[in-house]
Amino acid sequence: MAADSSQKWILMTTAQTPTNIAVIKYWGKRDEALILAVNDSISVTLDPQHLCTTTTVAVSPMFQSDRMWLNGKEISLSGGRYQNCLREIRSRASKIEDEKKGIKITKKDWEKLHVHIASYNNFPTAAGLASSAAGFACLVFSLAKLMNVQEDQGKLSAIARQGSGSACRSLYGGFVKWVMGNEENGSDSIAVQLQDEKHWDELVIIIAVVSSRQKETSSTSGMRDSVETSLLLQHRAKEVVPKRIIEMEEAIKNRDFPSFARLTCADSNQFHAVCLDTSPPIFYMSDTSHRIISCVEKWNRSEGTPQVAYTFDAGPNAVLIARDRKVAANLLQRLLYYFPPHSDTDLNSYVIGDKSILGDVGVEEMKDVEALPPPPETKDQIPAQKQRGAVSYFICTRPGKGPVLLSDESQALLNPESGLPK
Amino acid sequence: MAADSSQKWILMTTAQTPTNIAVIKYWGKRDEALILAVNDSISVTLDPQHLCTTTTVAVSPMFQSDRMWLNGKEISLSGGRYQNCLREIRSRASKIEDEKKGIKITKKDWEKLHVHIASYNNFPTAAGLASSAAGFACLVFSLAKLMNVQEDQGKLSAIARQGSGSACRSLYGGFVKWVMGNEENGSDSIAVQLQDEKHWDELVIIIAVVSSRQKETSSTSGMRDSVETSLLLQHRAKEVVPKRIIEMEEAIKNRDFPSFARLTCADSNQFHAVCLDTSPPIFYMSDTSHRIISCVEKWNRSEGTPQVAYTFDAGPNAVLIARDRKVAANLLQRLLYYFPPHSDTDLNSYVIGDKSILGDVGVEEMKDVEALPPPPETKDQIPAQKQRGAVSYFICTRPGKGPVLLSDESQALLNPESGLPK
Repeated sequence: MAADSSQKWILMTTAQTPTNIAVIKYWGKRDEALILAVNDSISVTLDPQHLCTTTTVAVSPMFQSDRMWLNGKEISLSGGRYQNCLREIRSRASKIEDEKKGIKITKKDWEKLHVHIASYNNFPTAAGLASSAAGFACLVFSLAKLMNVQEDQGKLSAIARQGSGSACRSLYGGFVKWVMGNEENGSDSIAVQLQDEKHWDELVIIIAVVSSRQKETSSTSGMRDSVETSLLLQHRAKEVVPKRIIEMEEAIKNRDFPSFARLTCADSNQFHAVCLDTSPPIFYMSDTSHRIISCVEKWNRSEGTPQVAYTFDAGPNAVLIARDRKVAANLLQRLLYYFPPHSDTDLNSYVIGDKSILGDVGVEEMKDVEALPPPPETKDQIPAQKQRGAVSYFICTRPGKGPVLLSDESQALLNPESGLPK
Repeated sequence: MAADSSQKWILMTTAQTPTNIAVIKYWGKRDEALILAVNDSISVTLDPQHLCTTTTVAVSPMFQSDRMWLNGKEISLSGGRYQNCLREIRSRASKIEDEKKGIKITKKDWEKLHVHIASYNNFPTAAGLASSAAGFACLVFSLAKLMNVQEDQGKLSAIARQGSGSACRSLYGGFVKWVMGNEENGSDSIAVQLQDEKHWDELVIIIAVVSSRQKETSSTSGMRDSVETSLLLQHRAKEVVPKRIIEMEEAIKNRDFPSFARLTCADSNQFHAVCLDTSPPIFYMSDTSHRIISCVEKWNRSEGTPQVAYTFDAGPNAVLIARDRKVAANLLQRLLYYFPPHSDTDLNSYVIGDKSILGDVGVEEMKDVEALPPPPETKDQIPAQKQRGAVSYFICTRPGKGPVLLSDESQALLNPESGLPK
């Protein structure tokens, strides 16, 4: 029996998808509608335990229209980016038969059936932590499972790309390259996994969420302005990035941290240089971002070889990649020394994610933060001023896995009876 | 009678030389020793009434060694840059005869005679206002007069260039181009005047001296790092700047303010972009610099055509060029609104230079600053936060004339009897 509105069944799928941070940056589209980049990019997928999107998608003959809720609040699906993803997935939907539940959906039925989507980020959406990457990746991944789409992960990444460029890289764990491709229709502009998350598992990532007063330029409009006005962007895309991509793949393959750090820092800085070369200029980094860079640069220099890489996306937050757990503990100690919280802050909300690193630092409560000694590399110089309250909080995490299905129905975000948010 | 140490005469010359602000920036040397640039640059000379160096040079058979005092404090002349200028001027010295004073100096005598130099800036040296440009220009200009050097101003600019690159542009008033030249010995790397200061005399310049906590990278070491590590610098120098130089010369010739402003802002931003693309990255602009840019960009956009150009040198201070006096008054009003001083500040020390613009704004005392209305372009938006104390003070000035000799001996900085600072 084909699906019709007299039927009461609801078919649901829930998935979890990580966010990612680019170490060779994507900045600039050669096609605005299809979201095709002017250069390849490479990212590290972040552990979904600390930063991820969970999305439940449901289909039912009872649903009157496509609807979506983000973090519990209904949002419009009319935007072109959502429509692109929904259309591309729907057109690839396959038939489903579940005799036990009395569900039968033909390929033709999918054109008429409506979906409900509920999505939730386990981190503050407004913090500028690439929530759209995880979000669109999760939307595409979960819809593809629900609609029994028989495409490989690469094809799905090309669909997620049409929601948000960097979303395509969240379809895989570990180290991921978004190949810009050559085809006009974007079919070869897909993500490929370079190495999985176990390949280089000593790396530890600390994100400093920086307090910001300024309204930021959205990355969509920012990169459009850069493409139109920066005289450095094309040189970066055509001459600089292709060489860096090759070097970065080598560095990742060989777990060569000094090269990885050098390339990551240089590429972050060059991306922000292109933003500054844009008219009007775009400033994503703040004085606090600059201070974090100076702190890392000084320490790396004092150690003779890089211990920590930094990279900044379209906002002031620092993503710091430490070569191993010992370095990460030293890094966190420095960060807490230079950027202590306001006195009324709870340590438990100031360092989140993998809090076990706090133990390595010997910090158990707030008074331990205040008692931290100055880092040795400041000793011969005027001790750097502490910037109390300049950082909102730190997230300790690591490279992580790609999207997964959550089969436990209790984790679904939609009620299995009503198809509405729980 | 030739000069010998039994003689008691002192021969003195005093000169005043302006500072300048580049509107097409110099960043990067192709020869460190001779100070040869990787690209042409163009500057506006600032009115010496508000920003200048005064230098008195003296020669006497009584002097035992070359000595120099800067702002009353003796400094070493042993640095290569001072030595280059002294050597080059000495080698071009001509004979002098003053029968009345009984002074006769042959070309040969100059090799043995020592000089005393006293130099004074009428603005804070530490404020990052290109004091070395005015300083070396004044040193070379005054020494050339003292030593009766028969070279034209262009040749003198090539000598000043060996003290500090941008100093060569302070040998002229108005609008000045430093031609990078092709010769290996730097002989054709000289300044030329594009237009004198009367050519475009509506322009008004307001400098916001920004409070800074961070130690800045010197421009000498910063540009060396950029040349060695920035992958964008050569592209800028070879592909971008040559076109901009032609366009900027046209804009200045035609008093075409929109083009002048567009080029000035874009080139300042690109220079700072190259600094950011350097390893380790160089940050000269601060959050306050960024806010000033945003304020100007927003206003220019709301007016439809640029009213104000901004440019930043190797520090956070903003140099703002208003198209005319009326715009300058509106600009100062905006600046005072967004960046009011701390409550204990005297208005007289908060706005210095040509204070008459304050009258145009209707600001006579501090309470008038507090009563300023928000600029109309903020009306439809959340009013921007005021940043009290983020600016140390403002200097109101204009394009100005080149070096002049001060014949009034009372303005000399050295005592005519002792040859020591007054």
